[in-house]
Amino acid sequence: MHRGRIFVVSGPSGAGKSTVLARVLSALHDVKFSASATTRQPRQGEQEGVDYYFVTTEKFKEMIAQDAFLEWAQVYSHYYGTPAGYVDDALAAGKDVLLDIDVQGARKVRQKRNDVVYLFLAPPSLQELERRLLGRHTETEERIKVRLEAARKEMSAIPEYDYLVVNEMGHVGDAALRVQSIIEAERARTTTMLKIWGDLVEPA
Amino acid sequence: MHRGRIFVVSGPSGAGKSTVLARVLSALHDVKFSASATTRQPRQGEQEGVDYYFVTTEKFKEMIAQDAFLEWAQVYSHYYGTPAGYVDDALAAGKDVLLDIDVQGARKVRQKRNDVVYLFLAPPSLQELERRLLGRHTETEERIKVRLEAARKEMSAIPEYDYLVVNEMGHVGDAALRVQSIIEAERARTTTMLKIWGDLVEPA
Repeated sequence: MHRGRIFVVSGPSGAGKSTVLARVLSALHDVKFSASATTRQPRQGEQEGVDYYFVTTEKFKEMIAQDAFLEWAQVYSHYYGTPAGYVDDALAAGKDVLLDIDVQGARKVRQKRNDVVYLFLAPPSLQELERRLLGRHTETEERIKVRLEAARKEMSAIPEYDYLVVNEMGHVGDAALRVQSIIEAERARTTTMLKIWGDLVEPA
Repeated sequence: MHRGRIFVVSGPSGAGKSTVLARVLSALHDVKFSASATTRQPRQGEQEGVDYYFVTTEKFKEMIAQDAFLEWAQVYSHYYGTPAGYVDDALAAGKDVLLDIDVQGARKVRQKRNDVVYLFLAPPSLQELERRLLGRHTETEERIKVRLEAARKEMSAIPEYDYLVVNEMGHVGDAALRVQSIIEAERARTTTMLKIWGDLVEPA
């Protein structure tokens, strides 16, 4: 059985990551989104195993001790992490796995695994990102400033990524297609293909 | 202006290369097919500059002396080659360039240029290739044997290629889409994208 690959997708809040990933997942077979584990309480509408795996702090610390995370981080009083088990099960079943993790998390994955593909989803500019965040009318100007500074910092890590997809205003479909193309192309890599099609190559 | 990239496509005769490439070219903007130069006579229906650039042997040798080919070869009494000038003009205009060249030609390009993407288009098996060649009813069994042996030899070079696309019977559209995905994905490489979107990255 062909083993799938991990695709890490990073990008600042407001870049449209969740919309783009939802489109990719509905379009591509054999791609699975792997939810994070968290110790925070579920919010309205969030589903166990879909949005997050909700676990106790005790359980989370136990998993840290067992090296059961691909990456994890503490944000204020809560823990967030990517459980390696679910990812490996999906890979072994031949699925490709999408992980939505931040720049710091991606760096940790890079230390643990080879053969991971790194994508960065960016807004066309910080000015455009600011317009989008202001347009939501859900946050104070102060919070938006904090977010923009975080975005600027995340975006300085773009050169660490294999691919950069720019999500232009009103073209979320194009960004999703671009991500799909990247997954399809990575599946067509000779090293990956020869695991299935090795018989094609006979000695010269 | 963003500079385009060269995509070399190789594959044995009967793998469906010309059908697949025709579909890719009609679907993708900003991709140009670069015809070869040859000293052989045009065949019925072949168009100058579309199928080949038809040149005299004297002119061809002059171009060899001027190092004007990306790669060239002599096959029996005729010369075939890829004029670098047309390719570079298209690249400079921001177009990606598709080159249909064989394994030997691809090896020569590899020595001359970096930043070229290599695709191999293969039939699902040599048995399937044999069936396709027999089905054409255009060649003797002896000629088909020669072609199959040539195909086996070409296919032994697959590991030299970045991507392998298998053109399965009755699924030429899938193979074309796979090639399109590869071109789209290569356009999304961070190193390529940052030539256009470099402003996104500010110091951390």
